[in-house]
Amino acid sequence: MTKAKNRLKIGILGASGYTGAELLRLLAGHPQIDIALLTGERQAGKSLAEVFPHLAGLDAPGLIKIEDADWSGLDAVFCCLPHATTQEVIAKLPKALKVVDLSADFRLADIGVYAAWYGHEHRAPALQKEAVYGLTELMREAIRPARLVANPGCYPTSAQLPLIPLIEEGSIDADDIIIDAKSGVSGAGREAKQGSLYSEVAEGIHAYGVAAHRHAPEIEQGLSNAAGRPITVNFTPHLMPMNRGILSTIYVKLADGATADGLRATLARRYEGEPFVKVVAKGVSPATRHVRGSNLCMIGVFADRMKGRAMVISVIDNLVKGASGQAIQNFNLMSGIAETAGLEQAPMFP
Amino acid sequence: MTKAKNRLKIGILGASGYTGAELLRLLAGHPQIDIALLTGERQAGKSLAEVFPHLAGLDAPGLIKIEDADWSGLDAVFCCLPHATTQEVIAKLPKALKVVDLSADFRLADIGVYAAWYGHEHRAPALQKEAVYGLTELMREAIRPARLVANPGCYPTSAQLPLIPLIEEGSIDADDIIIDAKSGVSGAGREAKQGSLYSEVAEGIHAYGVAAHRHAPEIEQGLSNAAGRPITVNFTPHLMPMNRGILSTIYVKLADGATADGLRATLARRYEGEPFVKVVAKGVSPATRHVRGSNLCMIGVFADRMKGRAMVISVIDNLVKGASGQAIQNFNLMSGIAETAGLEQAPMFP
Amino acid sequence: MTKAKNRLKIGILGASGYTGAELLRLLAGHPQIDIALLTGERQAGKSLAEVFPHLAGLDAPGLIKIEDADWSGLDAVFCCLPHATTQEVIAKLPKALKVVDLSADFRLADIGVYAAWYGHEHRAPALQKEAVYGLTELMREAIRPARLVANPGCYPTSAQLPLIPLIEEGSIDADDIIIDAKSGVSGAGREAKQGSLYSEVAEGIHAYGVAAHRHAPEIEQGLSNAAGRPITVNFTPHLMPMNRGILSTIYVKLADGATADGLRATLARRYEGEPFVKVVAKGVSPATRHVRGSNLCMIGVFADRMKGRAMVISVIDNLVKGASGQAIQNFNLMSGIAETAGLEQAPMFP
Amino acid sequence: MTKAKNRLKIGILGASGYTGAELLRLLAGHPQIDIALLTGERQAGKSLAEVFPHLAGLDAPGLIKIEDADWSGLDAVFCCLPHATTQEVIAKLPKALKVVDLSADFRLADIGVYAAWYGHEHRAPALQKEAVYGLTELMREAIRPARLVANPGCYPTSAQLPLIPLIEEGSIDADDIIIDAKSGVSGAGREAKQGSLYSEVAEGIHAYGVAAHRHAPEIEQGLSNAAGRPITVNFTPHLMPMNRGILSTIYVKLADGATADGLRATLARRYEGEPFVKVVAKGVSPATRHVRGSNLCMIGVFADRMKGRAMVISVIDNLVKGASGQAIQNFNLMSGIAETAGLEQAPMFP
Repeated sequence: MTKAKNRLKIGILGASGYTGAELLRLLAGHPQIDIALLTGERQAGKSLAEVFPHLAGLDAPGLIKIEDADWSGLDAVFCCLPHATTQEVIAKLPKALKVVDLSADFRLADIGVYAAWYGHEHRAPALQKEAVYGLTELMREAIRPARLVANPGCYPTSAQLPLIPLIEEGSIDADDIIIDAKSGVSGAGREAKQGSLYSEVAEGIHAYGVAAHRHAPEIEQGLSNAAGRPITVNFTPHLMPMNRGILSTIYVKLADGATADGLRATLARRYEGEPFVKVVAKGVSPATRHVRGSNLCMIGVFADRMKGRAMVISVIDNLVKGASGQAIQNFNLMSGIAETAGLEQAPMFP
Repeated sequence: MTKAKNRLKIGILGASGYTGAELLRLLAGHPQIDIALLTGERQAGKSLAEVFPHLAGLDAPGLIKIEDADWSGLDAVFCCLPHATTQEVIAKLPKALKVVDLSADFRLADIGVYAAWYGHEHRAPALQKEAVYGLTELMREAIRPARLVANPGCYPTSAQLPLIPLIEEGSIDADDIIIDAKSGVSGAGREAKQGSLYSEVAEGIHAYGVAAHRHAPEIEQGLSNAAGRPITVNFTPHLMPMNRGILSTIYVKLADGATADGLRATLARRYEGEPFVKVVAKGVSPATRHVRGSNLCMIGVFADRMKGRAMVISVIDNLVKGASGQAIQNFNLMSGIAETAGLEQAPMFP
Repeated sequence: MTKAKNRLKIGILGASGYTGAELLRLLAGHPQIDIALLTGERQAGKSLAEVFPHLAGLDAPGLIKIEDADWSGLDAVFCCLPHATTQEVIAKLPKALKVVDLSADFRLADIGVYAAWYGHEHRAPALQKEAVYGLTELMREAIRPARLVANPGCYPTSAQLPLIPLIEEGSIDADDIIIDAKSGVSGAGREAKQGSLYSEVAEGIHAYGVAAHRHAPEIEQGLSNAAGRPITVNFTPHLMPMNRGILSTIYVKLADGATADGLRATLARRYEGEPFVKVVAKGVSPATRHVRGSNLCMIGVFADRMKGRAMVISVIDNLVKGASGQAIQNFNLMSGIAETAGLEQAPMFP
Repeated sequence: MTKAKNRLKIGILGASGYTGAELLRLLAGHPQIDIALLTGERQAGKSLAEVFPHLAGLDAPGLIKIEDADWSGLDAVFCCLPHATTQEVIAKLPKALKVVDLSADFRLADIGVYAAWYGHEHRAPALQKEAVYGLTELMREAIRPARLVANPGCYPTSAQLPLIPLIEEGSIDADDIIIDAKSGVSGAGREAKQGSLYSEVAEGIHAYGVAAHRHAPEIEQGLSNAAGRPITVNFTPHLMPMNRGILSTIYVKLADGATADGLRATLARRYEGEPFVKVVAKGVSPATRHVRGSNLCMIGVFADRMKGRAMVISVIDNLVKGASGQAIQNFNLMSGIAETAGLEQAPMFP
C-alpha cells in the first residue's frame, strides 16, 4: 500500500479489546493515517504483537497507560473504553483532538434517559450536548464538522438504517415494530465472562436482556426523532455461536397503501449511491456471511403472508459497520478524507 | 439396562438419516422394544456400524431395501422416508402394523392444502383420514388408539405447544402472532446439499423460506383448530450454526386484561405434571442447550416493553421432541407403554 | 427408569463445573444411587436449576458450602475441586467414605514428581500412598477394593488405553512415542478465562502447553510402569473448537517383526468383551463424534507409509470416559455395582 | 482504492468455488488488474452477485461457459478447475496467456508419480515439463519467467515452507519427519458432499486419507529435492470444524549438534525480510486465527522433552497462502508487479 504524504496521527484508547483490534486491522490499510498511540490499562508495557499476534506485522507503537499518553501531535483518537470511564477520560482530553467514541457514553442525547438505563448520572453533560450521533449515512452533515462523535451501537445501526427512512417516509406504523436480532459473540467484548465461554455459547442460542437491553433506548431515540413523537419498540437480542455478525429480522405493519415492494423501493432510493448500504433484490435473503469483515449493511424486504405486514432483514458485521468500521467512516468524514478510505475490503466468505 | 420380557418388535424405514440415527440412539435405551428391521435404499447391504459408527454397539440388524422387508412379527414401524414416497409406502404396509410417520405426508388434514404447498396431489387420501396428528401433550386421547400417527414437524411442535393453550384460553389475539424461529442444521437432513455444507452455515445466520416454508400451514392448522376459525401467522425460520435445537421467539398481542404473568400461569397450569413440557420461572430465558439431546420443551414468557404485548420463547431439540423423541412418545402411547420409556435421558450440556 | 431398592447415597464436591454437571447428567440415569449432597463454594445457596437449567428436572438437593456438608449417611463422594484444595479437603473427609477424585491431586504416585510439575509440596502424602489410579480397564483389580481412587486425566486416558497394552506386549518402541492430541474446550473448565472465550477458540486451532503440559508426567508414569523403565514421550495438546472430545493421534515405531495389523490384533484381544473400549475395523478412522456423550473409547490402528512405523488413533469424550463417566465406572466397581450402570447411553450424533 | 493506469486483464476459470471466491476477494483490492473473464460450467449465465452475494459490489463480469470465453486481450488466467479436466483445458489455451493453476494437475514433476496417485495417465505431459512449482519464497527465480505455474497444495505449502530450509541446512533427519496437519473445511471445496455437511463436521475431529492423501507425494517431492535423495514422510491430515486454516505440527529428529533454537535461527535467517513468512519468537504458539484471511505463514519452533527431537508448528490460511493468495503472489512475480500487491490485508481476528 502506498501511504499518502500528509497523514494524520491517530490514537486508540483501550486498544486491547476486539473493537481496538478491528480498528487496527482496518487502519492498517488506511493510506492517510499513522497509528501513533495505543493505550491499554492492563496490557500497558506490551508490544502489539504480544497482545494481538495476528497484528504483529503492523507499524504501531506498544501499549501504554492512558496517563502516560502524549497528546501533542495527535489529530484524533478512537475511544474504546468502558462506559462511564469514557465520559471522564474524554472530558480531560485536549479540546483540539477529534474524538470518535465507540462506547455508549454519548449516544443518548437525553442525560435523564442515560441515567435511567445506566444506573448513574452522566459525568460529562456539557460534552453530551456537543456530541453528534454518528449514524453516518443518515447524519452526514452533522458529523462532518463535529469534534466528538458518538459512534452508534451495533444493534442500533442494524435497526435504524432500514427503519428511519421507512418511518420518515410514512410507509410503516412506527408503533408496531418488532426487532428480533441475532448477534455473534464478539459483541460481548474480550473480557473473561462465563457467559462468553465457548462451551456456554457454541451449539446453542438464547435471548438475553429481554425487554431490558441498553440498546433499546438508543434505537427508540433514532426512531422517535424520525417519527416526531416518542416511539417504543420491541427489541429482542439473541446470542448465537458466531464471531461476527448481526442479523435483525424486523417485523413491521404497513401504512395504508404501502407494500413490501414500495418499502424496498424507498430504501433503494434513500441509499442509492451509498458505498456501504445495499438494498438487495427481491427474494434475496441477506446473510451475515455476505458482509463479514466489511463495512457493508445489506437490507432485504419481504412481503408477509399476514395482510398488511412486511419484514425487513438487515445484516452487518457488528465489529465493522457496527463499531470500528463506522468509526473510521466517521473519522474520515470529520477529517475531510474520502469516506471509504480504509474500508474497501470485500467481505470474507467462507 | 434390563430389557423387559414381552417386548415389541419395531422397524425403521429410512434409517440412514439423522432422524433414523436419533430413533436408534433413543431406542437403544428403551426397555420394551427390539429393533428388528432397518431399511435404507442407498445404504442397503451395510451394517449399522458402517452407516453410523457411533451406533456400532447396538443390537440391530443391517440395512436392507424396503422391498426385501419381512413385515411378519413386526409390531410397529417408524417411517423416516421423503415426502410423497411416504404416502405410497405406508399405503402398502400390512394394516396390522402401527405406524409413526416422521415425514410431512399426513400432517395436513386438508389434502387440498397439502397439494397447494407440496405441489402434487395427495397419494393416499384414505389414509389421511385415518391419520392422527401426534402433538402428544395436546392430542393424547386421539393418539392412544391410533394406528397411524403423523408426527409433527419440528417448528410446528415448538410453536404449537405454547400457542394452542393460549389461544384456547383466549389470552392472546390469534390474528397477531409472529414466530421468529432459529434452527440447527440437522433439521435439513443428511442429504448432500450445498446449503448445508459447513462453510455455508458456520459463522453466520440467514432467514430462509421467508413467507413460504411448508411448516406454516401445519402451524396454522393447529392454531386455527384452537381458535375455531382460520388463522394466518408470520412464521420466519432462520438457519444457524448448531447441530440441534430450535428456539422460537413468539411475539403476541395480549387479549384485553391478559398479562405476561397470566400467560405463564395458563401454560404452567396446562402442562402441570407433564414430564416433557416445562414452563420456566419468570426471568429465565430458555436456551436450546438446556434441552439438547432430551425430549424436553421449555417455555418462558416475558412482558414486552410495548404495552399490551408479550413474548413467548420455546426451545426444543429438533431431533428429539421435534422428531424422533416425540415419535417414540407417540409409539409408547399407542402401545400402552409408559410414555417416558426410552426418553428419560437428561439434556447434555455442554 | 426404575430405581433399585437399596440405593447408595452419593455427594458431589464442586458440582458447579462441567465435570459436576456431567456426573449429574449420567447419575440421573443410574438406578442405584441417590444424589444427597452437592457443594459449590460460589454457588452455595442456589438450586441446581439455577446453576444448571438443563438439569432442572433432576431429583437433587441445592448447592451448599463444603463446610456445611453433613457426611453422615453418605456412601461416596465424587470430588471435582481444584488441585491442591482437593488434597486438603479429602484429607478431612470421614474415613468411611469412598472417594473418586477427579482432580490431578492423587494421580502421580511419586510426590516428588507432583511437586516438580505443580509447584508446591503434596499436602496429603499419606493419602497419596492409599490412592489407586483409576484407569478402569487396566487396573480393575486394584480399584475394586480401593477407598480413594484418583480418576485419570482426559488426555492420559486417551493415550494410555491404546499404549499400555502395546508396550506390555513389546510391540512398539517405548522410547519413540509421539502423542498429538486435539481437545474440545470443556476440558478447560467453566472458569471465566480469556483463552476459553468463544471468540478466542472458534474457527481456529493452536497447540498449548507445548512440552510443558501436566498430563505428560501422568502419561509417562503409566507407560513407564508398563515398560518397566522410565519412559519419556512427546505429548502435544491442541485446543480446538468443539465442546467435547479428545482425539489422540499417536505415532509409534514398531518393534522388530511387529505390524500395524498385529498391533490392532493385540488391542482387540486385550479389550475383547470390554463394554467401553472398542477397537475399530481396519480402515475405519475413529472420530470424536462417534463417542460424544458416551463412556466409549474407540481405537484404530493404521500402517504408516514410513517403513517400520504405525499410527494409533484413539477417541474419547473428555467429559465422560475422560472424567465423569470413568469416575462412575470406578465408583460402580468400588461399590460392587454393575460396571456399566448409569453409563449405557449411546453416543449422540449429530 | 486508486487503480493503476496500465492494468492487466485476468480471467478466472472455475470461479464459482471457494478458491475462485477468494481470488475475487483479494483481487478486488489489487490496484493493477481488471477482472475480465469468469467461467463456471454449472453457474454460467449468472451474475457474480447471484453466485456470491458477498461479492455483489465487485466490478466483474457474469459467469460464462469456458467454451464461450474470448481469450483475446487477456494477460493471465487463474485456473480453479477439477484435476484432469485442468490438463485438458490448459493445453488448449493460447500460448501467450500466463497461467497460474490452482489444481493438482501440474504439481508433480514425475508423471509416473502423478499416474500412480491420481489413477490415470497425465493428459498434458509436454506442459508438465514447462510447469514451474510455485512455492514462492523458495522458487522465486524459477517462477519469475514462467508461463505456467503449478500453485502448491495447501498442506504442502504449510509443510514445505518450514521443512525445506531445515533439510537443506542439514539440521534435521529427513528420514524421520511426522506431519500432523489439521485443516478447516473449505479445503474440501464447495461441492455438495455428505462428509462436508455442517452436522458431519461441527463439534468433532477425525483423521482422513490416512497414509493415502494425495498431498503426500507433493510434500515428498519438495523434501526429496531438498535432501538430494528420496524422502518418505508421515503425513496425517485431520478435518476439523473451522472454515479456514491449516495448522501443521511437525515432529522432527535433530541432526547431531542441532537444537530447537538453532532451527528457529535457521528459519528466521532464511525468511528474513520476507513479507509473508514470519518466524515467531521462542515460546509463542502459532494459531490459525493469527493468519486468517491473510497470505501469512507463521512458524514456531519448540524443543521436545524427548532428547534430540523438536517440533515445528506452521499455520496458514488454506484459501490464501494455501491457494488463492499464493496464486496472486506468483502472478505478481510472473508479471513484474510488486509481489505484495493485493495481498496486504491484515489477518482478521476474531
